[in-house]
Parts: sequence; structure tokens; C-alpha cells
Amino acid sequence: MPTYKAPIRDFEFLIAEFLQADRYGEVEGFAEAIELMSPLLQEAAKLCEEVLHPLNVVGDRQGLKYDNGNVITPDGFKEAYKQYVEGGWSTLTWPSEYGGQNLPEFLNMPMLEMVCSANLSFGLTPGLTHGAISALLLHANDELKNNYLPKLISGEWSGVMCLTEPQAGTDLGLVATKATPQDDGSYLVTGNKIFISSGEQDMTDNIIHLVLARLPDAPKGSKGISLFLVPKVMQDGSRNAFKCAALEHKMGIHASPTCVMNYDGATGWLVGHPHRGLPAMFTMMNAARLYVGVQGLGLAEASWQNALAYAEERLQGRALTGAKFPDKAADPITVHPDVRRMLWTMKAVSEGMRALTMETALHIDIAHRHPDAAVREKADDFVQLMTPIVKGYQTDMGFEMASLGVQVLGGYGYIEEYGMAQFMRDARIPMIYEGTNGVQAMDLIGRKLSMHMGRYLKSFFHPVDAFIAQHRDNPAMAEFTKPLATHLKYLQQATLWMAQNGMANPNHAGAGAVEYARLFALVALAWLWARQAAIALTHSSSCGTQSVSAGSAGDAAQANASQNDEFYMAKLATARFYYAKILPSTISLLASITAGSNSVMAEGLRVE
Amino acid sequence: MPTYKAPIRDFEFLIAEFLQADRYGEVEGFAEAIELMSPLLQEAAKLCEEVLHPLNVVGDRQGLKYDNGNVITPDGFKEAYKQYVEGGWSTLTWPSEYGGQNLPEFLNMPMLEMVCSANLSFGLTPGLTHGAISALLLHANDELKNNYLPKLISGEWSGVMCLTEPQAGTDLGLVATKATPQDDGSYLVTGNKIFISSGEQDMTDNIIHLVLARLPDAPKGSKGISLFLVPKVMQDGSRNAFKCAALEHKMGIHASPTCVMNYDGATGWLVGHPHRGLPAMFTMMNAARLYVGVQGLGLAEASWQNALAYAEERLQGRALTGAKFPDKAADPITVHPDVRRMLWTMKAVSEGMRALTMETALHIDIAHRHPDAAVREKADDFVQLMTPIVKGYQTDMGFEMASLGVQVLGGYGYIEEYGMAQFMRDARIPMIYEGTNGVQAMDLIGRKLSMHMGRYLKSFFHPVDAFIAQHRDNPAMAEFTKPLATHLKYLQQATLWMAQNGMANPNHAGAGAVEYARLFALVALAWLWARQAAIALTHSSSCGTQSVSAGSAGDAAQANASQNDEFYMAKLATARFYYAKILPSTISLLASITAGSNSVMAEGLRVE
Repeated sequence: MPTYKAPIRDFEFLIAEFLQADRYGEVEGFAEAIELMSPLLQEAAKLCEEVLHPLNVVGDRQGLKYDNGNVITPDGFKEAYKQYVEGGWSTLTWPSEYGGQNLPEFLNMPMLEMVCSANLSFGLTPGLTHGAISALLLHANDELKNNYLPKLISGEWSGVMCLTEPQAGTDLGLVATKATPQDDGSYLVTGNKIFISSGEQDMTDNIIHLVLARLPDAPKGSKGISLFLVPKVMQDGSRNAFKCAALEHKMGIHASPTCVMNYDGATGWLVGHPHRGLPAMFTMMNAARLYVGVQGLGLAEASWQNALAYAEERLQGRALTGAKFPDKAADPITVHPDVRRMLWTMKAVSEGMRALTMETALHIDIAHRHPDAAVREKADDFVQLMTPIVKGYQTDMGFEMASLGVQVLGGYGYIEEYGMAQFMRDARIPMIYEGTNGVQAMDLIGRKLSMHMGRYLKSFFHPVDAFIAQHRDNPAMAEFTKPLATHLKYLQQATLWMAQNGMANPNHAGAGAVEYARLFALVALAWLWARQAAIALTHSSSCGTQSVSAGSAGDAAQANASQNDEFYMAKLATARFYYAKILPSTISLLASITAGSNSVMAEGLRVE
Repeated sequence: MPTYKAPIRDFEFLIAEFLQADRYGEVEGFAEAIELMSPLLQEAAKLCEEVLHPLNVVGDRQGLKYDNGNVITPDGFKEAYKQYVEGGWSTLTWPSEYGGQNLPEFLNMPMLEMVCSANLSFGLTPGLTHGAISALLLHANDELKNNYLPKLISGEWSGVMCLTEPQAGTDLGLVATKATPQDDGSYLVTGNKIFISSGEQDMTDNIIHLVLARLPDAPKGSKGISLFLVPKVMQDGSRNAFKCAALEHKMGIHASPTCVMNYDGATGWLVGHPHRGLPAMFTMMNAARLYVGVQGLGLAEASWQNALAYAEERLQGRALTGAKFPDKAADPITVHPDVRRMLWTMKAVSEGMRALTMETALHIDIAHRHPDAAVREKADDFVQLMTPIVKGYQTDMGFEMASLGVQVLGGYGYIEEYGMAQFMRDARIPMIYEGTNGVQAMDLIGRKLSMHMGRYLKSFFHPVDAFIAQHRDNPAMAEFTKPLATHLKYLQQATLWMAQNGMANPNHAGAGAVEYARLFALVALAWLWARQAAIALTHSSSCGTQSVSAGSAGDAAQANASQNDEFYMAKLATARFYYAKILPSTISLLASITAGSNSVMAEGLRVE
């Protein structure tokens, strides 16, 4: 049975010292949010650790039951959802006029992460509702908003996104579901959708489907798709004309219903403008993509905690430099460098992703709340740029770290008993849904880089340059700022190569897109780790003398180290590991990107 | 439902043109083997494609039944095993005096790969028998050999390896199972083993357990372990005193019984010398490690075939350079550079691993059969050196390629219906069993590099140098030999760094061991791909003018291309992809290796 303990200390560090959200005293809601931080995190942790986490294994083993259109969730899920709603956890960030608490995203992200660590399958239902609310807030008329938002925000109802059809996945232009206008202003929606997460479940009284469909006069392709709100239960209490026809059998997220949905003249209402469903859906998708990135983070964190706990207890072999615990049968496997390499990787990547997530969350809040439009725009640029990176990198790493976690446990990782296998199986889907990670990379390279003549890029390059300049005269920071400058240059070289060659031949851009996105993420994490190291170094009694090259001068300081000091020492050690063992990947990525697309576009994949 | 077609053309190419096994006319059995090649591969393919492959999904879904110590295999497995035995497939490589066919390994490896592609769970039972036979042939006395080898080799009986105990996995020195000598020369074996693959099943009349246990006077640690042969059914037909107490629930290989075994004074016989069980077990392990490497290859191949087939049929989006099939609803996803990148990666890695496997197999044969002792020794050096690389790299890649295959199919990859999820789940275990891949890397760096003052290394470096020298004056080969020389230099730099620093501080070696092993594998595959390219270029009507830089001069030749020409063109294209997009990883690995172990051995993994 796996364990889970919410990383509250790291959240507090990130909000208070790393983001320094209190710098923005003028932004509405920030001051109150910082005051609320600790009690809110404590309460959220309690729910996740004590209620959601124990149900994770139950959900995986029991799975879902399908009964003639109804879907029965595993034991305890209904009750847990009730607690989630009663705690007000679905209301945090939403506007108070619809019953929300109007809190900033940087307080919501920790809760999202904790839910994903504790029970991803459970979290998907409120997660999708979150996306549906975003779309309705921005695109629905007041009547729809008033009728549906209060209960979606309270969590009494859930919302789902219905895009995919058997022939239309990444290419939504192929959507064939039809919507026929009725005299009363409603529409009848007819068609089949697949892969609809939470399309049917028994935890909420109503499920609000947001369905992509075509009006009779719709142009072909993606410019002829409209968005419809199709509730499961109508306002008169009758059941709408759609049904879950089957559940998919999946590698993981066994407690999350992946539904085949049949709409048979179901009543719905147009959200936004005719034929403009795709842009509306993308509002929802962008929020959803960040959330999916948080899923990767949550699973990496959960797997890391369990891998460390196991490695500290498991006795096998002896340290290469001589037995560490000669009176025990063997040393704990944390003495072995390769096991440490895996554990440090999991720690450095998980905490690095958390910093990236929180940095992005703060920028979302500034983009929404700052009084100055220019500041809002700049913050939004950063969010736009980082969305495909958060989604792509964090879900790749969620899976890779969960797989490393399996490796740390060896045979015990491969059997289902310890829960590591579930983390890995669950972690494989976020790389695919809400746009595959290949699609994310194309979004970065095809849209985000060129947007507004490269303006988005500046929202990243400028602060990194500024950070390097700020620490130029600090010798203690040179071990980070020098390599950061070097690796930033690799990213800039790759960016230039993409700009020059991708324009002439889009296949050059496409062939290196995934590698470019990875390179970007690695440099972003290098910047975030250097910033964390800079903070750690200001706690100089614990860290200032702990540099590897400084030898044993820090022993005295270390002896006095309080728990708090240990936290900063560990941050510094993790930053060093990241720079030594993870960041060097950039060099090969640059070489592979600039190799271009000739070998990729060549003939010969199939030989008869 | 996935498909599988045995890659016979590639096997024939590798044996006839790549290995040129007929060069060694003086070696016993080679000439006959080459004559047998085509009919044998055809027959093997038939069994794998038509009998074993359709049962793979059945085995995954049905799993095993446990009934009071008995294990019932899925529908069809018993019958398939009977066909396997009747076809003589278990006898290929074994000495004729015990009923074997005495064929070389280079004819056996294709069969092993095909079985792993078709049905890994099925293949594990005969695979483990193979290991047991190796150990008995080398270490058992004549009585045991005569009593057990004929039926193990015919396949009527199976053999299994019983090493792991709850507290003793990687560290076999902690084995606690006891063996008490009896007056009649037998021993009573008592203890508990876990993770025993095929420890119990219903496909064979008898199961021969090779069990590691301690004699009463055994010294502590790994120097006090002995090996015992413990049959399930005694010669008088009575049942021996051991039992399968439970089956593990695993992420994959659902049709392979992973048994908890309890030995309760079971009768056994000593194999080899007292307290020398570990070296005997390692004979078995070394053969088994190569076989586990083949499992990675088999799963990569199976996943690749299905990913390609899906990608060719799946219509989504349009080529970046304009629609390729304007009259279809969309282009097949093979037009997208990132999809092609994934598919080429799967092809280049799978075929590269096949070449590595076959090259190693030929060296095994030479080491066993060559009349000249010096030639035998040199060939064995290569096998020793390559064993941890084949096991580690090929199983890492089996999993990574199967995961790429899931990504190519997107949502259809994550659901169980298409079989891609099973390939990935099955592919996760070979990275762990027969020594985790971390243990393989330590074997390479801690044993193989230093063995006989670095003599093993020469068995790799010399032929690579010779190959580069041989093609120095061939301008058509420069696109391969130049980068090969460069990347070989990186490997030599890493080797030198390991030799200099690993001696002074073994943690430096341990911290970079996995990266070093990867770097080694990448350069080995670069050599093997350059050799394949050199052969392809000799078929100059198809390939000579197809170089990327040569433009369209080859159009006329291409128009005349026969199926055979296509094969060589594809080999050349795949080699180019490997050099452009996969090989560059070496640069980062070198940087990460030479970063050393300070950051890895630092404190701070756990913060309270």
C-alpha cells in the first residue's frame, strides 16, 4: 500500500519566498490569499491524504461497473466526492457572483497537485468541470451562465468536454456530430463521441456535456464546428436523449469512466457563436492543458515519495566504499550511487516541475487581476508560451519518473501490491489526452514562437537574462549562472535555427519540435532551480559553505542546522544535481534539432 | 487485435550478408545451418504468427488461475506448448548426445525473438528451461545430466531458476533457504522463494527447480550458497515436498506465473560443488541475460509493426507542405514529421538491436565451436562485454519503443483493445529481472572493463577501428565513418574518465554507470548501422545515388527498383536516421558521466 504526504513545506516556500506573491500587494485578492495559505493547504492535505489517497488503490482494483447506460464508481468515491464538494474545494478560483471564492490560481494549483498525487482517477471529474466552467464563463450567454454555473461551481453538477469521435481525434475538423436548430432556440444533437472522460458517473446529480457538433449550414473542416451545452438532466427533471453506450478498458485510471457516448437527438443550447466552437473549446483546452501538466507533476511526486521510502528501508548489498551499517545484514539501497541517481532525478524533476507550475499560476493570476493592462499582457504572454511546455514536459516526466519509481522497487515495483505500477499506468495517459505531446510541441513551435513576431518568447528570455545579470557579481551563484547562460545560448541557437529553417521548410520545424520543446523545458527548469538555489544561499548559515568545492568548512554550521536549514541545504543540493546530471541533455537535443528533417521525411518506413 | 509478421527478410540479410557466417566454413555446423536457414525460419514464423501470436491477447485478458497449489494456464497455452515441443523448437542448440540438434545460436536467436514478439508470457517457460539446461550441462554430474537433460531438452519437462527470497533480490548473499544432507546423498531443501517465473504451470509433466540454498556448514554471504536440483515429480512418480503458495498480480506478462514457492523439506541433489552455487547460477544468468535482451527486441519489433500499420491507415490532419491525398478526408498520419520521427526511431532501434543480437550470437557460436583457441577466446571476450549491454540497452529500448508505439496510436494506444498497452506493460519487466539494468551497468563498468587489464574492451574497439580504416577511402561511406569515429572518441573519453576516476572513487563509476552503458550501446549500434549501410551501398543500383545530398539523380534507378532494392534503400535510410537523430545523445551522456558523483552522493534526499 503506497503512502502520500502533501509537500506543504515546498508549497509554502514557493508561494512565500519563490514567487513572493506579496510583491504584488496592489493585486486584488493576493494579500488575503497569502494569509489563507497555511490553513488552506493543511485542510486540502487532510482531505487528500486521508480520504482520496486510500481510495486510489481501491479504484484501480475495483474499477467501474457499467449497467445499461449507468456507470457505478468504486466504493467510497461518491462519499469522497461529497466531502470534496462540502469542503468547497471546487469553488476556490471562481467569481463570487456564481458562488466562487475568487482565490488566485497559485493557491489552487497546490490543491490540484495534491488531488492528482492522491487519486488521479477521482480528480478527473472535478478537473473536467473546471474546464467546462472556464468555457462557459467566457463564451456562454447570461441565461446559460445563470442556469448552469452556480451548480457547476458548487460541484453539485459536473461538466465534461465532448470532442473526440472515432474518425476525429487530433483533427477536430473531421467532427461529424450534427446539431439541428429547433423553433424554441434549442438544438437537437445527434452523433457518437468516444473517449469522453466522466461522460457518465454516479457522483453528481447532473452532468453538463459540452459537445462539438455541426450546424446544417456549417462549412467543412474546423471552421464549421459549434459548441453546445447538453445537460444529462433537463430543467424539468426529465432525462435528455443521450446515453453512455460502453466503457473503454484501459491500461490505467481504472476508476475514471472513459465513455462511448451516443447522442440521439439530445436537446442542447449553442455556446457562443455558430461555427466558432473550436476557439471556445480551446479556451477550455488551454486551462485543461495546464491541469494535465499538473497531473504529471502529481504522479511524479507520489511515485518519488514511495520510491524514497522503500529505498531507505530496503537492505541489499554494501556501499562501494565499504559497509555503512556493518551490524545490519546489508546497507539500505540508498547507499548505491545508481539508486541515488534515480532518486535525485525524481526529486529534482518533481520539485522543478512544481516551481514551473507555480510560476505559471502566478502569471495566470497577474494576467487576470493586475490593474495595469501592459503587465497583464506580459504575464499572459508567459502563460501562452509555457502552456504547451507545462503540458508536454510535465506529462512526459510524470510517466518517466513513475517508471523510475518502478525501477527503484525492482520486482516489488512491477507487482501491483506496492502501488508503483499503478502510478506508471495512470501516468501514461496525460501524455496523450488534451492534445498529444507531439501536438503540444507543434503548438509551441508553430504558433507560440511566431506569435506577435516572437513577443511571447521575450516573456521567457528577458527574465532569464535579467536573473543572470542580477547575480553576475555573486561568486556563490556562478556555479549556476554560468551554465545557465551557456544552456540558454543553446536554446537561442535552436530557436534561431527553427526560425530560419522552419520557415523555408515546415518539416524541419516538425521533425525537431518535440526535441525543441524538451530543450526549452530543460532550460526553464535550470532557471527555476537557479532561482531556488539563490534563495537557499541567502540562508547562509545553512548553505553558504556547503558548496561541493568548499570542502568541510561547513561542518560546524551543519551541526547547528535546524530543520529549516536542512530544507535549504536540500534545495541547493537538488539544484546542483539538476545542473550536473539532467541539464546536459540540452547539448544532444540541439544537435538532433539542427540535423533537420531529411532523414525523417525519407522513404523506406515500409518495405514489402 | 494486433498483428505480427516475422521479419524473415531481415534475419536472412543479417545471417547471409551481415554476419557472413559462411566465412567460417571451418566451424562445425555452420555450413549446414546456413542451408537450413530459410526453411527453419519459415517454419518458426508459422508457429509464432499462427499459434503463439493469437494467444498473446488471450493470455493477457484471461490471466492465470490458482487452485490450491496448481496453476492453470490460459486457454490454448497447453496445446500451443505441445506444438512447440513437437516441432522440436526446444532442441535447436543443444548437444546431440542429449537429443539436441546442435545448431548454432545465430539460427536460434531469430526463433527466440519471434516467440517474444508473438507471446512473451508463453516464451518465458521454454526460455527458463534453456537457462536451466545451460547450468546443468556445465555444472551437474553425469547422473543428473543423464536423468534430466533429455526431457528438459525435448521440452517434455521444464526447468526454472529459484534465486530470489523476500529479503534477497539483487543481494543473493542474503539467501536463507537451507539444505540438509541425507545419508543417500540427497538433500532436504527448506525455505521460501518469491518471484519464481514458471515455478508452477500445467504445460509440462515435470518442473525441475534449480534452487539456491545454504548447507549447514556454509560461510556467510554469497560464498556460502549452493545450487540444488529439486524436481516437482520424483522418479518414482511421487510429488516432491514443495508447493506454489500464491501468484503475484503484475502489471503485465499476465499469462506467466510469478510464483511464491514454499519448499518444505523437498528432496534435491547438489549441482556442482558445495558453496559454489553462485558461479553456477551465473552461467545460467549470463545466457538468460542475453535472452532477456532479446525480449526487449521482440517487443520493440512487435510494437513497431503495429504502430506503422496503424499510422498508415489513420487519417488525421494534412501534411505541413500541403495535402498529400486531397480527395481523402485527411492525410494518413505518416505525413506528419513527428509521427515519422517516432516510427523511424522504432525501426532504427529495433533493427539495430537485431543486428547487435545476431552479432553477439555469432560470437557465442565462434566461442563454442571454433577450432582455434585464440579465436574462441577473442569471441568470448566480445560476448562477455556485450552481455550487460544487450540486456540493459535492449530492455530499456523494448519499453521505450513500446511506449512510443502507444503514443503513435494516441487514445487507441492507451485502451487495451489494440494490444499496444499490453506490449508496454509486458516490456516493463525485462528491465528488472535477471539483474536490474542498474546491476547490468555495474557489471559492465565494475567487472567487464577491468577484466584481464581491459582485454574485453579491445574485442569491441579493434573491430570498430578496423571498420573505419577499411572504409577510409570510400567517399560514399564518409557520412557514417566520420561521425562513427567522433562518437567512438566520446566513448573512449568516457572510458578513460571511468578508468582514472572510478579507481580513486568507486562512486564516480557507480554514478555514471547507467549513462556509460547507454553511451556504449549507442556507439555499438552506430557501428552496426554503418556496417549495414556499407552493404546497402554495394547494391549500388538501388542505393548509390540515394544520398540525401545527391538530390534527384537517383530517380531513374529508383524507378527500376525491385523489392530487393527497396530493402537496401530502406537500410540506408534507417542508418541515416540513426546517425542524424539518435546517435547525438552520446554528447550529453559524456557530459553527465564526467560530472562525477558529488551531486549524487550529497545529503538531502530526505527532508523532515
